[in-house]
Amino acid sequence: MSQTSNRIRWGMLSAARIGAKVWDAIRLSGNGVVAAVASRDASKAEAFVDEHQRRRPFESRPRALGSYEALLEAKDIDAVYIPLPTAIRAPWVVAAAKAGKHVVCEKPCASSAEELRGMLQACERAGVQFMDGVMFMHGARLGRLRAALDDGSSVGELRRVTSAFSFLGNERFLQEDIRLDPALEPFGCLGDLGWYCLRFTLWAGNWRLPKAVTGRLLRAARRRGAAGDVPMAFSGELLFDGWSAGFHCSFEGALQQWAHVDGTLGGVRVDDFVLPTHGDRSQFWAAGQSVACDQPADPHAEGQATRLYRRFAELVLSGRPDSFWPEISLKTQRVLDACLRASKSGAPVNL
Amino acid sequence: MSQTSNRIRWGMLSAARIGAKVWDAIRLSGNGVVAAVASRDASKAEAFVDEHQRRRPFESRPRALGSYEALLEAKDIDAVYIPLPTAIRAPWVVAAAKAGKHVVCEKPCASSAEELRGMLQACERAGVQFMDGVMFMHGARLGRLRAALDDGSSVGELRRVTSAFSFLGNERFLQEDIRLDPALEPFGCLGDLGWYCLRFTLWAGNWRLPKAVTGRLLRAARRRGAAGDVPMAFSGELLFDGWSAGFHCSFEGALQQWAHVDGTLGGVRVDDFVLPTHGDRSQFWAAGQSVACDQPADPHAEGQATRLYRRFAELVLSGRPDSFWPEISLKTQRVLDACLRASKSGAPVNL
Repeated sequence: MSQTSNRIRWGMLSAARIGAKVWDAIRLSGNGVVAAVASRDASKAEAFVDEHQRRRPFESRPRALGSYEALLEAKDIDAVYIPLPTAIRAPWVVAAAKAGKHVVCEKPCASSAEELRGMLQACERAGVQFMDGVMFMHGARLGRLRAALDDGSSVGELRRVTSAFSFLGNERFLQEDIRLDPALEPFGCLGDLGWYCLRFTLWAGNWRLPKAVTGRLLRAARRRGAAGDVPMAFSGELLFDGWSAGFHCSFEGALQQWAHVDGTLGGVRVDDFVLPTHGDRSQFWAAGQSVACDQPADPHAEGQATRLYRRFAELVLSGRPDSFWPEISLKTQRVLDACLRASKSGAPVNL
Repeated sequence: MSQTSNRIRWGMLSAARIGAKVWDAIRLSGNGVVAAVASRDASKAEAFVDEHQRRRPFESRPRALGSYEALLEAKDIDAVYIPLPTAIRAPWVVAAAKAGKHVVCEKPCASSAEELRGMLQACERAGVQFMDGVMFMHGARLGRLRAALDDGSSVGELRRVTSAFSFLGNERFLQEDIRLDPALEPFGCLGDLGWYCLRFTLWAGNWRLPKAVTGRLLRAARRRGAAGDVPMAFSGELLFDGWSAGFHCSFEGALQQWAHVDGTLGGVRVDDFVLPTHGDRSQFWAAGQSVACDQPADPHAEGQATRLYRRFAELVLSGRPDSFWPEISLKTQRVLDACLRASKSGAPVNL
């Protein structure tokens, strides 16, 4: 481990737009710096660094690299952020692990649970931390919801979790976005949005796996030139012992990111479980409690993205990878796979 | 038609506890009076009239009758309220219609759509009004929600309706309640609670029928001595052209009566679609509107129950039965039947 004593050095394996938020989060984490940004096109990497270094600078200007290989070979990189498309991401995660780099991986993590197992084995063998990029896992609110769900009196035994995540893809999205191309994002809206619903449900149930799941492809679509369809609207159900969960996700409805967690004694409505917005409040309706969201006035100040990158760096700096994070990625992926399989067979899939 | 010019005379075909709310609603409707209450046990009818006449009196004390037949034969009764158990209700609705009585029928209306068709034919032939007892249909809020759903800009095209209705049955309920006896209430929670979810969904979609439905029996139970099980927790999905709906109902979770109606441009969250409580507000989250609930400070003053009985009496007094009400009962029953069938076959049922 060659990082300086209190900061880890990040490499970004893509100069895609999604990286802007990650740059900011690392900048604000206090225990990390972006040391390099790689793109297959060196000029894109340069432009990305220029833009963000002007806006929110690091002390040393991050290097712009013209290949992912160059980033993985670099000796001064401790951890990498990999937002590459799902279908081509696995070999880069494995290569990063083999190069001794810790990995933050976008979701859905892989094209299948089988593929993800291979990625996680590579990380485990190399002794590097793996974590997926689901930011809501790191919001301060979640801990308060957890306490209420587990206190035995606010919600009682779980009975039903319901969640919805959708946004309305515009014409350009429908024509061009990689999330509508099965060669790049085989799960479509199920991977991009349903991943969050499944993650929230598994979280609510303290990471028990469902006995079985169902899935329904409500609508399929493809972008221009794509060789096949992906889920454009999808619903499913997770069947646990004594409780169940329903979810719905789509690229064809106005933004919604709500969830309900209902139990024998009460329930909680979460207006926005993905990205708690300022002023959003989670309402405990039976117990009469109101758990305020953790989002402060400045969305950059202490947001869940910042907390993700700080926590990840802490794990790296501790020298002890935490197996919790790869485990929940794999559970989410297993359920995701099963939901898609169920939608194809028309029958529940056992886990 | 022998009612006095501006008031219709009601008979209650049961002295069950549920009748208390109906007594009050008729008392407050301004265009109806309870003229008689019948029970198979005359003393029960007497006790019911005593109790309620003391509490909220009519000018003339309603008669207490010792048989349903006597009520249907009475010349001074214009309309009847029939809350008998679902499995034994049909012949009484038919007999009431044949006796020229208008009918308010509790839900679920019948043991099957086929049976309900027979009941509705009897009402149509006799020229009497039929209406089921779903009170939320008569709340003032619904009209405001309708306007927002249909204005083309608040919600846009429907994409997903989600609803949940549950309560936690206590030990006595689980041991004794008729809703856990298939000989009396064959649909269990699906009939008692799911009926509301289906009705709300059909309402949201302006009464289009789904192309197909699914159903899942999440848990079954029976009361002591019952010959079989009924649904204790149930979920299902309604598949329309371009949109879908999910619902969940159960006797084993804390009270919840929420719904979401989500479209391409926005959505509305209804905290309590069954019985809007004072202070409940329906939130339009995308359009930035807030549609207040219609429930005034005095829950008796102008509640949706009162409005149901007033509207029904207006229809009777008009002399022109409105086919809208039996039509939506039949649509709801058809979808209900199909959901139960789907839960048995494990496959979607086409409508």
